[in-house]
Amino acid sequence: MTARAAIAAMTAYTLDLREAEVKLNQNESPFDFPFKTEALLRIAGRPWNLYPDFESTGLRTALAEAFDFAPENILTGNGSNELLAATVATFVGPGTPVVFARPTFSLYEKLITIAGGLPVPVALDPLTGLLPLEEMLRALEALRGAVVIVCSPNNPTGGVLPADGLQKLLDTGATVLFDRAYGDFALDILPPLHDRLVTLSTFSKAWGLAALRVGWLASTAATCREIRKVKLPYSLNIVSETIAAMALEQRALRDANVEQVIAERERVAAALSAIPEVTAFPSGANFIAFRSPATFENFLAHGVLVRKYDGFLRVSIGSREENDRFLDALSAILVRDAAMGVRS
Amino acid sequence: MTARAAIAAMTAYTLDLREAEVKLNQNESPFDFPFKTEALLRIAGRPWNLYPDFESTGLRTALAEAFDFAPENILTGNGSNELLAATVATFVGPGTPVVFARPTFSLYEKLITIAGGLPVPVALDPLTGLLPLEEMLRALEALRGAVVIVCSPNNPTGGVLPADGLQKLLDTGATVLFDRAYGDFALDILPPLHDRLVTLSTFSKAWGLAALRVGWLASTAATCREIRKVKLPYSLNIVSETIAAMALEQRALRDANVEQVIAERERVAAALSAIPEVTAFPSGANFIAFRSPATFENFLAHGVLVRKYDGFLRVSIGSREENDRFLDALSAILVRDAAMGVRS
Repeated sequence: MTARAAIAAMTAYTLDLREAEVKLNQNESPFDFPFKTEALLRIAGRPWNLYPDFESTGLRTALAEAFDFAPENILTGNGSNELLAATVATFVGPGTPVVFARPTFSLYEKLITIAGGLPVPVALDPLTGLLPLEEMLRALEALRGAVVIVCSPNNPTGGVLPADGLQKLLDTGATVLFDRAYGDFALDILPPLHDRLVTLSTFSKAWGLAALRVGWLASTAATCREIRKVKLPYSLNIVSETIAAMALEQRALRDANVEQVIAERERVAAALSAIPEVTAFPSGANFIAFRSPATFENFLAHGVLVRKYDGFLRVSIGSREENDRFLDALSAILVRDAAMGVRS
Repeated sequence: MTARAAIAAMTAYTLDLREAEVKLNQNESPFDFPFKTEALLRIAGRPWNLYPDFESTGLRTALAEAFDFAPENILTGNGSNELLAATVATFVGPGTPVVFARPTFSLYEKLITIAGGLPVPVALDPLTGLLPLEEMLRALEALRGAVVIVCSPNNPTGGVLPADGLQKLLDTGATVLFDRAYGDFALDILPPLHDRLVTLSTFSKAWGLAALRVGWLASTAATCREIRKVKLPYSLNIVSETIAAMALEQRALRDANVEQVIAERERVAAALSAIPEVTAFPSGANFIAFRSPATFENFLAHGVLVRKYDGFLRVSIGSREENDRFLDALSAILVRDAAMGVRS
């Protein structure tokens, strides 16, 4: 084995792979794509033996029209993960300080480590899960040439950056990687372009296309040109590109799905807040993080798969039926605990 | 702009994007996938809103069975490019010397630069395009902890490593990244596993699925575990994974396609060798590199798109009709040149 030391010391990205009737562990959309037949007919008519368009021009143009940018402001990729990796490799080299909240999406720290950057984690408020903007700004003040990665709403806690948060981060002179994977559920809008701001979006959550792995980023043309040097060519296959472009034509459908997820999130949040043993974090995303006596294994025993973090759990907002299964499981666990006197 | 210096100094991977009737510039298969309807029906039945299997278990198991490995010896990804990038990032850090032939697939040098490695190019024989094995071995002797990337048959020249070449490279103590993207056209077999050997394969060439972006690598379980730490999770979408696994079931079809491409390559090579003004490099791939008075633009004027390199051109082997169009264009260009006395 000759992997370099930084890699040998890393742990792998893992996921607790369990079978369960109700899968609420990956923040997936409860709504499948409703135009599969039309999509597949479009794909059947194209040659599969030829490489995709070199620049993903079709999807980039569709995104530019949908969000009022120019195609030069957009890069598409194999999930926003790929674009995040390319962006980190563009801006982070050996020793570059990178500020991020902790806990947040674990891929960030992994990418920083691979690039040889200096991770500068800033702890979230453990009682609310809100993004520690002031602490991040203070950390950035002391650093030159820093990069900051911010996920808002933050995965896995759900906290949203204040309205002027991005501008304050940019004002420090840092390069800002803004991951708005869950932004649609906070009804955010894409921030204006800036040379030091890279905004990453995904089709996996609000658009409900996690199986197809499509992401995109927006920045100035100059910054996109730099990231494009690092990004792999042809990284988006023709099937995913075609279907993402079709999905964009159905924005009203996405909006209706998002509205339904938000309504369910508020219903689940209200139910959680009515339970004295439970502390739920405020969430602008399609999931809720919470502390409670119920464990990951307790939920699994009730057929509900949630995600386990250090000190709390995260439940994705699914269909109404799935959310009810989750709430019923939680009640049953707490009632049983009370009956057994576990925490009485 | 705040891209780090190594990136700012890089040039982007580019492709001369031209429209032409006969496209022989990307080493694509002339054969489209013949089971599209069945493939699309399989995909229609799956949920698109859920993430792919975390480990691509289905395709990895199918590959393990097809090539007599265990699933733990295999990683799949979004084209072999993605796996190459992850492998380079696993083994190449700041200052790591990386030996490779030049010219070869340009992505290697780009990935070495991104990783901060030290590129150690070894020139190919400019008269034959053969891989400079002895010179590479000599370069490796003088280096400690080196990595070598070797593409055999080499893109873009077509030269094949001698049978004992890989073993000799391994004997130097180097970590060997063996890119056999074109190996099927040289009728090679997968080399035995070794902790310091990573073998990269693709579905884009012999399998004819360039549009879907699927690649895979083979190594020991220990080395796969290290690379998996670097590789992005969920990098293979469900459509590409499903279709690649279906393609594997049709190995006889692939073999027939490969046989036809090889027969056409030999026909084109024989035709080229009969033209005094042309020097063709010996090729074990689905393309031929050649020097001739005919230029990239000459071919384009005849509706044939080839690929231009420093001092030579590369033509992909297409269908019989496409190859004839290429040979006819070449004859027409040379006859016109002779008539105009350009090189008489």
